[in-house]
Amino acid sequence: MFASQLKNSVRKSKTLVDKISSPPLAVVGTVAIDAVETPFGKRDRVFGGSASYFSYAASFFTPVSLVAVVGEDFPQEYRKVLEERPIDLSHLHKSEGKTFFWRGRYSSDLNSAQTLETQINVLTKFNPLLKFKKQPDFVFLANIDPALQLRVLDQLEKPRLKFVACDTMNYWIAHQREDLLRVLARVDCLVINEGEARELTGESNLIRAAQKIKTYGPDHVMIKKGEHGVLLFYGAQFFALPAFPLESVFDPTGAGDSFAGGVVGYLASTGRLDFLNMKRAVAWGSVIASFTVEDFGLESLRRTSWKMLRERLAVFRKISKF
Amino acid sequence: MFASQLKNSVRKSKTLVDKISSPPLAVVGTVAIDAVETPFGKRDRVFGGSASYFSYAASFFTPVSLVAVVGEDFPQEYRKVLEERPIDLSHLHKSEGKTFFWRGRYSSDLNSAQTLETQINVLTKFNPLLKFKKQPDFVFLANIDPALQLRVLDQLEKPRLKFVACDTMNYWIAHQREDLLRVLARVDCLVINEGEARELTGESNLIRAAQKIKTYGPDHVMIKKGEHGVLLFYGAQFFALPAFPLESVFDPTGAGDSFAGGVVGYLASTGRLDFLNMKRAVAWGSVIASFTVEDFGLESLRRTSWKMLRERLAVFRKISKF
Repeated sequence: MFASQLKNSVRKSKTLVDKISSPPLAVVGTVAIDAVETPFGKRDRVFGGSASYFSYAASFFTPVSLVAVVGEDFPQEYRKVLEERPIDLSHLHKSEGKTFFWRGRYSSDLNSAQTLETQINVLTKFNPLLKFKKQPDFVFLANIDPALQLRVLDQLEKPRLKFVACDTMNYWIAHQREDLLRVLARVDCLVINEGEARELTGESNLIRAAQKIKTYGPDHVMIKKGEHGVLLFYGAQFFALPAFPLESVFDPTGAGDSFAGGVVGYLASTGRLDFLNMKRAVAWGSVIASFTVEDFGLESLRRTSWKMLRERLAVFRKISKF
Repeated sequence: MFASQLKNSVRKSKTLVDKISSPPLAVVGTVAIDAVETPFGKRDRVFGGSASYFSYAASFFTPVSLVAVVGEDFPQEYRKVLEERPIDLSHLHKSEGKTFFWRGRYSSDLNSAQTLETQINVLTKFNPLLKFKKQPDFVFLANIDPALQLRVLDQLEKPRLKFVACDTMNYWIAHQREDLLRVLARVDCLVINEGEARELTGESNLIRAAQKIKTYGPDHVMIKKGEHGVLLFYGAQFFALPAFPLESVFDPTGAGDSFAGGVVGYLASTGRLDFLNMKRAVAWGSVIASFTVEDFGLESLRRTSWKMLRERLAVFRKISKF
């Protein structure tokens, strides 16, 4: 299963065997059990978490190491979902206790989630110890406590990584700003929501917000705007991509994480960090996210073929050309 | 003054003299005195109104007839602003009483205005009587009472117009829905704000909102999203353009009206209504609007040259290409 999927999903990899045993990309973040309410339905148990969405999305482009922790209650069926793909699970630790749990609700506009309940559970004791055969060149610090993001950076920075990006959320901006700024000083790229970019910088204008974020450290900033698409600030250059025109968004959970997975997965698979390649990465990330939101959890991505991805990329090119 | 401006501003017009005496485009709407507060400044008297912004913007592309009413207090200096451009003022009526007055305030996000005061004044008695030498092929019904928009349509529909578009606002959606729906049944294109599209249709998803609007009559819908750009629904086709990346928006008043002026002005100057031309029109409209918001009233547009417009169009092409 793994091998046949790889054949279809990993593009033009000359050193596939090496890549599988030592993926060029690693993500650290959460693997979670979610409970989600949207205007279109309710589900009490959904496979979620920032690192789950990221790694599944990235695996369309490249093998990826998932660095995370789960509890004793983590369902075998969720693990099997990850095993469908070229996702290295040797850094998916199992700890005593329960898996991180998040319960959220989306109102009718679907643009922002209301968190109803968070159970940190095994995350409280999570201390990622990284033992890669070969250090990945690309690392994504998905949304998780910035103190943990720092501990990962401490273990990875020598030799210098080729590209490290991170995400964060309003909670860390409000409650752990110092650690977050330490992370930002050490990453190449921040991937952040529109509202969080404003909250982090105190700037309501997103162009100014991005410029301010660059003074914190990152050379590049990606601002995710949901139905309004995404802005890329690449050094002094700028790119804007609209969102895929979806008539119905079923569940926005994981859209941002799978966007980032598509972006960094594509970058890792191509190994290039020039502006044009970064723009293409943003487009691929947007394509992946447009599928994620069409069902609960990873269910839509699991049904998504390369043909479907390519078709939507073509639509993206078409809708923004004049 | 008029002629020299024309030379610079009207593009490739072979029948310029005819066009000036019988402009191919007419707009009906308001000419107003505004009072505006933004986070960056306050001005007690600003030349405003939907038809003023529209006609000034459209005049970069084509001569335009302005159909509106002003009061006895309408300043001569405002009239002179319109006279700078190829704007036919023979349908700008002067009535007893005071000019339409609007006072509004923008909060820090600049995305929506709070109306503090409206004095309808001479608009209460406005009954546009159109006596064109030659009926314009293109008509824009700018934001004004839909009953007035209907009266204009009644005078213009025979022979069939080539293209008629309209704008509206939340007040008419809430209080004069029947008349508004009668207008929509008779226009080719609606140009509307994001929030108003949702209010008009009861659909929070903008793709569905546009589809619903098309069932009311218009073949085409343009949804203005401020800092998030604009969506064009052209029959069954779709186009999305991001906003020009402005670090500071000084005063958003008139952005939507000058967007529409750029769009319909460009269409009228080219005479073509195919999808590609409509996309280009949307881009030109966005260019014009990006200048409007850089100062109070028409002040920024008055300083804007064709060279500046062309430079921004090139930026638009660049920022959305991948």
